[in-house]
Amino acid sequence: MLRDDIATSDGLTFYDLETPCLLLDRSKVQSNIARLRAHLAPFDVVLRPHLKTAKSIDVARLAMTSPSGPAMVSTLKEADYFARNGVTDLIYGVGISPAKFETVAAIERTHGAKVAILIDCLAQAHALAEWSQQANHSLDVFIEIDCDGHRSGVAPDNRVMLEAIGQMVSRSACNLRGVLTHAGESYSLHDADTLAGAAERERCAVVLAANTLRAIGLQSPHVSIGSTPTAHFTRNLDGVTEVRAGVFMFGDLFQAGVGVLQPQDIAVSVLATVIGHRQSPDRIIVDAGWMAMSRDRSTQNQAIDQAYGLVCDLDGAILHDVLLLETNQEHGSIGIRQGSHRTLPDLAIGQRVRILPNHACATCAQHDSYQVCDAGQAIIATWPRISGW
Amino acid sequence: MLRDDIATSDGLTFYDLETPCLLLDRSKVQSNIARLRAHLAPFDVVLRPHLKTAKSIDVARLAMTSPSGPAMVSTLKEADYFARNGVTDLIYGVGISPAKFETVAAIERTHGAKVAILIDCLAQAHALAEWSQQANHSLDVFIEIDCDGHRSGVAPDNRVMLEAIGQMVSRSACNLRGVLTHAGESYSLHDADTLAGAAERERCAVVLAANTLRAIGLQSPHVSIGSTPTAHFTRNLDGVTEVRAGVFMFGDLFQAGVGVLQPQDIAVSVLATVIGHRQSPDRIIVDAGWMAMSRDRSTQNQAIDQAYGLVCDLDGAILHDVLLLETNQEHGSIGIRQGSHRTLPDLAIGQRVRILPNHACATCAQHDSYQVCDAGQAIIATWPRISGW
Repeated sequence: MLRDDIATSDGLTFYDLETPCLLLDRSKVQSNIARLRAHLAPFDVVLRPHLKTAKSIDVARLAMTSPSGPAMVSTLKEADYFARNGVTDLIYGVGISPAKFETVAAIERTHGAKVAILIDCLAQAHALAEWSQQANHSLDVFIEIDCDGHRSGVAPDNRVMLEAIGQMVSRSACNLRGVLTHAGESYSLHDADTLAGAAERERCAVVLAANTLRAIGLQSPHVSIGSTPTAHFTRNLDGVTEVRAGVFMFGDLFQAGVGVLQPQDIAVSVLATVIGHRQSPDRIIVDAGWMAMSRDRSTQNQAIDQAYGLVCDLDGAILHDVLLLETNQEHGSIGIRQGSHRTLPDLAIGQRVRILPNHACATCAQHDSYQVCDAGQAIIATWPRISGW
Repeated sequence: MLRDDIATSDGLTFYDLETPCLLLDRSKVQSNIARLRAHLAPFDVVLRPHLKTAKSIDVARLAMTSPSGPAMVSTLKEADYFARNGVTDLIYGVGISPAKFETVAAIERTHGAKVAILIDCLAQAHALAEWSQQANHSLDVFIEIDCDGHRSGVAPDNRVMLEAIGQMVSRSACNLRGVLTHAGESYSLHDADTLAGAAERERCAVVLAANTLRAIGLQSPHVSIGSTPTAHFTRNLDGVTEVRAGVFMFGDLFQAGVGVLQPQDIAVSVLATVIGHRQSPDRIIVDAGWMAMSRDRSTQNQAIDQAYGLVCDLDGAILHDVLLLETNQEHGSIGIRQGSHRTLPDLAIGQRVRILPNHACATCAQHDSYQVCDAGQAIIATWPRISGW
């Protein structure tokens, strides 16, 4: 079935797009957001969506509680982009180097936004205090807490360090907003009780740190936790003021492996066209390689390894055990999961499929826009996305 | 050592750049190109550089034998970009779907270029013949040959299929340019004799296919082989008219593992800034995570696993056994290679390092420009690069 054989509606459909490209199912995004909001509704917390996955103001507006935020970003380029689009309550969620203070201040001045920064050591606090005085600019500051030995942050029981950093910030011209942590280790879990345990440890760590600061008279009005897995499985948020999550909006095969959502809930997929066939082993070659999917193989160490992606038909129905088994830069090879008795679908040169990704953050980063659909194959919008630093 | 402590020259240096960013050492690019040219000089072949790694006209001009090519591309967006910049002899090196014929023709008409396409089945040949007549446009065609069961192409001894495709193209309005193959399996090798063997099998496969076409009176003026490993280790190119290679211009840790070049020859690196430290395990946290490096871990299955990258000082000197061991989206954790008795360098918040990548094609794709240096830390140019499809 070649392109000319496909009936098209008045508007654009999947067969009008150049491939490979990134499809985004808006109704699934909305459902994923609604599900997390419903889970958090019983708690007295704000949802601060992390925009590092979407990098799109159109997606951000679906996820944020107001057009001005709050929201989280992973680069200062995101901060600038979202601030320019009216998001005024931002946190830059990566520990900062002093060379970036002035960039943050410039974004704040230009767009009338606040871009809070993270610090976790005295060298940063000292450099910040000095810079702040010289620049005559006050930045909002969170102290990052390491709740699970995962990456960055002050150990929650390191009272001496917490007090020293807190005091240095509070004596400077800057504004200590509170404490923040990220339960990165939760990504390796996969059942509800264990995930609830990780969420509780995340909560305890950051509440302990906030209380340490309060005990010496420092304010910590914001107590922020967040990871997509813990946000979905938390059962207690006492003492927490906000919850952050990012990849939940789209979902991916890795998050499905964790148990956050089902594969059919995944909102993002790569549209690919059949460009060849191969016998022994039996493969369908498509024009989505690792450049379109990313080199992410996050599911490799999960119970179900989804190779480079799980193949769906154009309506989004999963073709069970049909995987993107191998990739080169612009070639993808579709085959059957090892051990499965299913057979490959009959897909001719020119036919198209959708491929669900391992990791939405990595796959979306390979593309400069979303082709937005809803139920059905009509394109209802094209949403640009940003990249870089 | 924070940024303010660094002496800067009159021009931009590494400490004036926003991090993470992509550094390109022009003199190393030139050396890598000169090395392959010298190896191929005794043979009567043309070097057709593959521009999928560089995606930059500035780099292309260093590698091509003339401003108009020849060259190879991996996407039609590259074809359009390079044609617009005067490269008129191009091959689109991925098997084509019929929906792309018109895009190729539009690039040819707009820029006065030739963008040859690859086909390997009768469905493509048939669709091409039909389209060509309707569009009144002749495309140049290569028949892709599968020399090592790697991915795409007609088996070189499948005489019936080769003849049928060749005859269908020659009866159409299109122009059969020749046969082309890519020794993809050579990437898994690592010694000179075995690589020379792979190169010889690649040569034999494509020469056999060319002779099969000639035996029934079809022209095959171009006989094209190419992969970075086989191009560097070939000892015999009888019957071959052109050699293609792409990643050789930059090199990477994977190609160093194959033996194509030494790690110190690698021309591309990611500049990163220290943003934190961690005890137990001992780590230096930098602002280059997998978004800046890509998720590529190609060296994982080689004799020397280089994790997410090998760390160098700002002069490009390799810090032996200092690796980017773990990455998150915007965090990288530098530590010591397992089993090594070396210790981490003393790098304070704000200091910078260069990180050599596993796979130049994947890492460069995460960035929208090259900050070009030479020996030394001065930035001598910024070269844009393209992405997408």
